[in-house]
Amino acid sequence: MNLTAIQLAEKLDGTLQGDGEVQIYLLAKIEDAKPGSLTFLSNPKYTPFLYTTKASVVLISKDLELEDSVACTLIRVDDPYAAFTRLLYDFAAKKQKNREGVDPTALIHPTAQLAKGVYVGPFVSVGAYSVIEEGVQIESHGCIGARVTLAKNTFLYPRVTIMDDSEVGEHCILHSGVVIGSDGFGFAPKESGDYLKIPQIGKVVIKNRVEIGANTTIDRATLGETLIQEGVKLDNLVQIAHNVEIGAHTVISAQSGVAGSSKVGSHCVIGGQVGIIGHLTIGNNVQIQGQTGIINSIPNGSKIQGTPSMDYTSFYKSYALFKRLPELDSRMRDLEKNKES
Amino acid sequence: MNLTAIQLAEKLDGTLQGDGEVQIYLLAKIEDAKPGSLTFLSNPKYTPFLYTTKASVVLISKDLELEDSVACTLIRVDDPYAAFTRLLYDFAAKKQKNREGVDPTALIHPTAQLAKGVYVGPFVSVGAYSVIEEGVQIESHGCIGARVTLAKNTFLYPRVTIMDDSEVGEHCILHSGVVIGSDGFGFAPKESGDYLKIPQIGKVVIKNRVEIGANTTIDRATLGETLIQEGVKLDNLVQIAHNVEIGAHTVISAQSGVAGSSKVGSHCVIGGQVGIIGHLTIGNNVQIQGQTGIINSIPNGSKIQGTPSMDYTSFYKSYALFKRLPELDSRMRDLEKNKES
Amino acid sequence: MNLTAIQLAEKLDGTLQGDGEVQIYLLAKIEDAKPGSLTFLSNPKYTPFLYTTKASVVLISKDLELEDSVACTLIRVDDPYAAFTRLLYDFAAKKQKNREGVDPTALIHPTAQLAKGVYVGPFVSVGAYSVIEEGVQIESHGCIGARVTLAKNTFLYPRVTIMDDSEVGEHCILHSGVVIGSDGFGFAPKESGDYLKIPQIGKVVIKNRVEIGANTTIDRATLGETLIQEGVKLDNLVQIAHNVEIGAHTVISAQSGVAGSSKVGSHCVIGGQVGIIGHLTIGNNVQIQGQTGIINSIPNGSKIQGTPSMDYTSFYKSYALFKRLPELDSRMRDLEKNKES
Repeated sequence: MNLTAIQLAEKLDGTLQGDGEVQIYLLAKIEDAKPGSLTFLSNPKYTPFLYTTKASVVLISKDLELEDSVACTLIRVDDPYAAFTRLLYDFAAKKQKNREGVDPTALIHPTAQLAKGVYVGPFVSVGAYSVIEEGVQIESHGCIGARVTLAKNTFLYPRVTIMDDSEVGEHCILHSGVVIGSDGFGFAPKESGDYLKIPQIGKVVIKNRVEIGANTTIDRATLGETLIQEGVKLDNLVQIAHNVEIGAHTVISAQSGVAGSSKVGSHCVIGGQVGIIGHLTIGNNVQIQGQTGIINSIPNGSKIQGTPSMDYTSFYKSYALFKRLPELDSRMRDLEKNKES
Repeated sequence: MNLTAIQLAEKLDGTLQGDGEVQIYLLAKIEDAKPGSLTFLSNPKYTPFLYTTKASVVLISKDLELEDSVACTLIRVDDPYAAFTRLLYDFAAKKQKNREGVDPTALIHPTAQLAKGVYVGPFVSVGAYSVIEEGVQIESHGCIGARVTLAKNTFLYPRVTIMDDSEVGEHCILHSGVVIGSDGFGFAPKESGDYLKIPQIGKVVIKNRVEIGANTTIDRATLGETLIQEGVKLDNLVQIAHNVEIGAHTVISAQSGVAGSSKVGSHCVIGGQVGIIGHLTIGNNVQIQGQTGIINSIPNGSKIQGTPSMDYTSFYKSYALFKRLPELDSRMRDLEKNKES
Repeated sequence: MNLTAIQLAEKLDGTLQGDGEVQIYLLAKIEDAKPGSLTFLSNPKYTPFLYTTKASVVLISKDLELEDSVACTLIRVDDPYAAFTRLLYDFAAKKQKNREGVDPTALIHPTAQLAKGVYVGPFVSVGAYSVIEEGVQIESHGCIGARVTLAKNTFLYPRVTIMDDSEVGEHCILHSGVVIGSDGFGFAPKESGDYLKIPQIGKVVIKNRVEIGANTTIDRATLGETLIQEGVKLDNLVQIAHNVEIGAHTVISAQSGVAGSSKVGSHCVIGGQVGIIGHLTIGNNVQIQGQTGIINSIPNGSKIQGTPSMDYTSFYKSYALFKRLPELDSRMRDLEKNKES
């Protein structure tokens, strides 16, 4: 993005006020914009920043009345937030790499199938019988095992591991350091006190439009599939164990973990550092506060907190009294004194 | 695995019932088996699935009386679970890669010693004076530092880092993204308010038959060794700090962390997201519930929960009353009212 | 380090007692030193080890009176701890790799600028317009994106990802598996129940003398910067979300996470597995106990614990009573019985 204020005003069908020749090449928030930035004013709470911002150009509402002089160029539009968001998507789209071709250092197994127009970066390896569909981009140092499918338009950031037999849907985004298809954590205790590894011969299936954060790990199933349904969003450093299923459009924040064979419903919103033990069923539309520890199945639509988890409102009632326990204790002692006297 | 039901019945010394020509190429659970799968029925709870499963072949007990017609082929054996498990290990053994040789893209330092028959994958680097023993397999993008030992039959999944001077025992399995031998987190506060890095010149020693999950990190000792004893199993995203010792056959679930210089005993079972602060001694056979926070040493055989941790049974007694705090509070108010009147 | 006791005594201006020809090649703690090690005795608590240690040479105070015979060589100095620490830094400095040059397997974009004397290891990729300043060392499998700056003397361990537009200051140390500049976790819910990805077009800025632990992740800002100020130390597996700011000389232990747009002050000491939700302000000099969950802004100089967090002393008063809740409950029942009678 490299536009003058005049070009921008034309693009947005807005009214220019101030220097039209100023160049913008960056989008920013009004409170920390630098020269060369475009920003916007929508929330009245931020109005004072209009008179102090270092942004070169600010989108404002066509009706806003100025209360002081401004150093920046203004462009008046109907809806500054909407106009800014449109530019943000334009900007992101231009930044997106639409490279094609296979880097000469990449190692592609002769039996792997690469569609036309895919991009495979430096030091990537793709194993036997894997299928890389149209529009897929694999950045550097990716390790794609054997018999993997990466469906259309999926994007792998650098240093992603996809182990054998994994299936990744269309339009997925996997961030750097992700590991898909590591062995489930399954061991059978032996009488001698050590453990026998239980073979993990299942796989991971990831549906369309899933995004997976940096250094997140998803284990393969013992038998069958670990299943991430359509539209799921996983943040960084999340752990999904073997045979787990995460329902469609569920969002899980950083550093949360779901233990073996648990099923999480659709449209759940799960905070950070949440733990869910194995073999549970979490319903749909469940909201889980950060650091909650879940040891029982949870019905649809619940909102929960605590370790072990309880209803959110009940938790806060109890926790308010936990804080006041010293006071309760002293009241109890008063009553006891009274009784004795 | 590609067998007909007849071949399978012969192999298992079982009695065939139904179509003997059907092919099986997959092992599955009875409740989600697809055509082409072999499964088994052992737990009576699962009996109803026998009449609905899509599996091609089911192993059942030789004594089971059918209550309805079945669509699948049956093989009657003495112990269906044992027979299935045997096949599972066979299957896993066949799947296991026993490749040999050094990929032409791998970089092996001329002073490194590689035994015959090791496998070194694409884009692997092996540093000076490292010793790679018989049967070791290093998958792609592995980074093996200088003076590292990888003992017999150890398997490194793709993208594993083993820093200088680390020792890994025999028959270990390290999953993708593991980092062994990163610096311990040691800093000395200076009067100026910033920190001086304390050199971390010790190493990591991992004994035989240890398994380490994806993206788990084990720091080198400041001086001496961070020590992972025989048979330890660490899940994904676990953190082991400098100078920690983990006792033999202890199992640690995902996202748990042990801080500097703590010693964890043998045969402990540690849940997910557990935190253990530094310089503690955790006994043998200790069971730690998920999300527990440990700030004191723990005797042998304890079962603990909570932050800070307490005895498991006591925790649950207290927690039951925590849930009932609003009721306790109102009873207290009744007593106070009574006193006043 | 390969010195005789005589050479060492000269170097430290100390007095030799015992065999001067013995060689030392390792530094160790007195309680677990092996032959060939140098150690020291400073804390009187460790004095008994002087008579049993297997170290070859021990630094002791010039005034220490022996109570028994010793097997090792002694060197008497003014301050054994200070002398040992000096040797530790010497040793670490010698161990440090000061390699130069670009490995022939590395891929450097023709527009990238590399200063003289940098080291770029095997299988490293450096993107367009990136600037690698003097003294920088990038170990194997590093992925440096486009328009990245790595300032003077920064050290990247193997397998580090630095995404496009990130800036890393001077004298930083990034451990293996670190990911800098992954997308922030930002999604707008749509009426249809799925999510729209919010473009993340900001960047990560890391100031001088920052150390970042293995497999830690730092997301780029939505707009603007995720900012890690001078001297910050992050342990392993830490998560820093988009638009977060971490103040100078703050230390964060392993597996902690800071959610989007929160600002953490300077000189804070944050334990392991701490969670801080988004859009908060944590003051300066705040101490946060391990596993604390923070959902409100925190003033300067606070010491806090619990989920949700409360003042440290208050937490412990309440927690002591939490443990005694069964006793409180039974006292209450006594009072109620009394009232009835």
